[in-house]
Amino acid sequence: MMQHTGELNLSDFPRTCGEWLQGRGADSDVVISSRIRLARNIRGFNFPIKMTEKQKAEVVELVAEAIRGRALRLDLNSSSSIDRALLVERHLISKELANGDGARSVIFGRGEMVSIMVNEEDHLRIQCIKSGFDLDRIWARLSRIDRLLERQLPIAFDDKVGYLTACPTNVGTGMRVSVMLHLPCLTMKEHIRKVQRACDSMNLALRGLYGEGTQALGDFYQISNQATLGKSEEQTVAAIKQVMPVVIKYERGMREALLKEDKAFLEDRVERALATLRAARQINVEEMMQHMSMVRLGLRCGLIPPAGLGIHELNELFLLCQPAHLQKHERRSLTPEERNVLRADIIRNRLSQASMN
Amino acid sequence: MMQHTGELNLSDFPRTCGEWLQGRGADSDVVISSRIRLARNIRGFNFPIKMTEKQKAEVVELVAEAIRGRALRLDLNSSSSIDRALLVERHLISKELANGDGARSVIFGRGEMVSIMVNEEDHLRIQCIKSGFDLDRIWARLSRIDRLLERQLPIAFDDKVGYLTACPTNVGTGMRVSVMLHLPCLTMKEHIRKVQRACDSMNLALRGLYGEGTQALGDFYQISNQATLGKSEEQTVAAIKQVMPVVIKYERGMREALLKEDKAFLEDRVERALATLRAARQINVEEMMQHMSMVRLGLRCGLIPPAGLGIHELNELFLLCQPAHLQKHERRSLTPEERNVLRADIIRNRLSQASMN
Repeated sequence: MMQHTGELNLSDFPRTCGEWLQGRGADSDVVISSRIRLARNIRGFNFPIKMTEKQKAEVVELVAEAIRGRALRLDLNSSSSIDRALLVERHLISKELANGDGARSVIFGRGEMVSIMVNEEDHLRIQCIKSGFDLDRIWARLSRIDRLLERQLPIAFDDKVGYLTACPTNVGTGMRVSVMLHLPCLTMKEHIRKVQRACDSMNLALRGLYGEGTQALGDFYQISNQATLGKSEEQTVAAIKQVMPVVIKYERGMREALLKEDKAFLEDRVERALATLRAARQINVEEMMQHMSMVRLGLRCGLIPPAGLGIHELNELFLLCQPAHLQKHERRSLTPEERNVLRADIIRNRLSQASMN
Repeated sequence: MMQHTGELNLSDFPRTCGEWLQGRGADSDVVISSRIRLARNIRGFNFPIKMTEKQKAEVVELVAEAIRGRALRLDLNSSSSIDRALLVERHLISKELANGDGARSVIFGRGEMVSIMVNEEDHLRIQCIKSGFDLDRIWARLSRIDRLLERQLPIAFDDKVGYLTACPTNVGTGMRVSVMLHLPCLTMKEHIRKVQRACDSMNLALRGLYGEGTQALGDFYQISNQATLGKSEEQTVAAIKQVMPVVIKYERGMREALLKEDKAFLEDRVERALATLRAARQINVEEMMQHMSMVRLGLRCGLIPPAGLGIHELNELFLLCQPAHLQKHERRSLTPEERNVLRADIIRNRLSQASMN
């Protein structure tokens, strides 16, 4: 097993950003990424919340043994809070694991598609994330990893209910399927409530990217399943696969209608956003996300010539400008004000290199 | 007398904008323009509000005779509402005269420094406006014109109270002295209330450029005298001349402090404003004024290289983008939405020609 010791560096990651931010894959005009995660626990141990520190360390070690040599492993108990925040920004670990305590770790592949959190709410949280809308391949890959782990570890499973988990909302499949969407035109035209109703009727959850409210930062939303009990993994995937084309078509239709009926309005929004990103001398994450949402829309709708800057570069910039990434970039901790200035500098620099107009 | 007949055209004006928008003169980093107007009435006639249409026409004719050949005269009763709005935007007539009815006219010099409104609230409203802070020369010029008119017309004057006017607030000197100021840093730092208190203590009025509130559009304010009774013209001018250096110094000090202590903040505001003006595909007057205020500040503080665009060009653009000017430019009436698009086009065009960065 490759165990990373000491401080993380951006150069430790083979790619600037994980595969999920490559901006490719099916329906990537609307779908940023798809993700499935499985909650698993090891027989013979309490759930993490009730474990002693010694037991936690044992679980970390057991999982490390099981994965041996296949991926990068990082001990989170000894890593800095900036390193943990960096992993959250890369979607490799959850905020809960980052802010937790005691022995816990993350194991992830070099493409950052697969990651395993150890001692989050459950002993194991296994996830696979990919750009675009491609749940079948994600599920195929994840179930291979799941089977591999089951061969190595005694996973807690009940024949009647399924996988046992710390929280009852995960019992059964232990599966959470989620799709991250960019819905700028549905947001603009205030049609998100209709998406909300469609999700409600299918017992799916709709959330903003980083918040709990329905008004998502930068027009990013997440649709995920709620039920894990009494449904098979395939049924869970099928439910999401049923609602997604409807939402995708709805957003696309809204984009086309706006382009046709009020192109000047769209152009205005897109050009202002791009100009502000290129001009700002200080900018916070929230504002950056809002403007990047418009630039993304502009690129997708052909309102901005893509010369020099594509969705992939925009995604890289987005990730690099998150707080922990900025601090890793500078190799020191920065105040929020310093970050706002550095973020603006980096964006201005990248966007002036990429002569898009 | 040169009487203009038929529709006005922008080409009827020898200059793109009047002298008051040239951006020169003393203290022009803070003072846009200075203005004095005198209210005068002709003996033997009721005040305009109580005049018959025939009497109004007589007054218009009397004044025309008195000025004969010295200036351009425009009959407002027969001119279009867009033409009248154009004159308001150029500060040649008041909104009240534009929206009034019956025989009324305006007489103005080719440099647009002097204008005489006939049959506004009083028979005569004589004004002189100049860029920068220069009340002495304005007063010298205006009193010459006043004497000239007094030689031609029987002006209503009472030895005890002074000039008689329609509204008691003008009785005495009939004089209103006003100075238009650009106070972006005092506005930013919320110190306008202190300016308000200084004005209150001197019995001077502080107003926003186009509004009655204290939060002025685009950070433009006007300071003017309130009293006209029991004070000489020279005392009235002196009162304004006493408070102005204080306000000018206060704004300058705030600019210097901001440049020294938070240059990044100022640069951010200026660069965003300029970028938005260059990028917008539709923009209304209010937003344009706000951004232009920041660009003006940037030019004055040396944050934007003035190559290609100076304060004078910015002022021209500001005037050309007012609603009536836009419609005159296009030679047709435009909806507010059409104006917003045209305004953005013109600004983008001018600002990309002027390669400031």
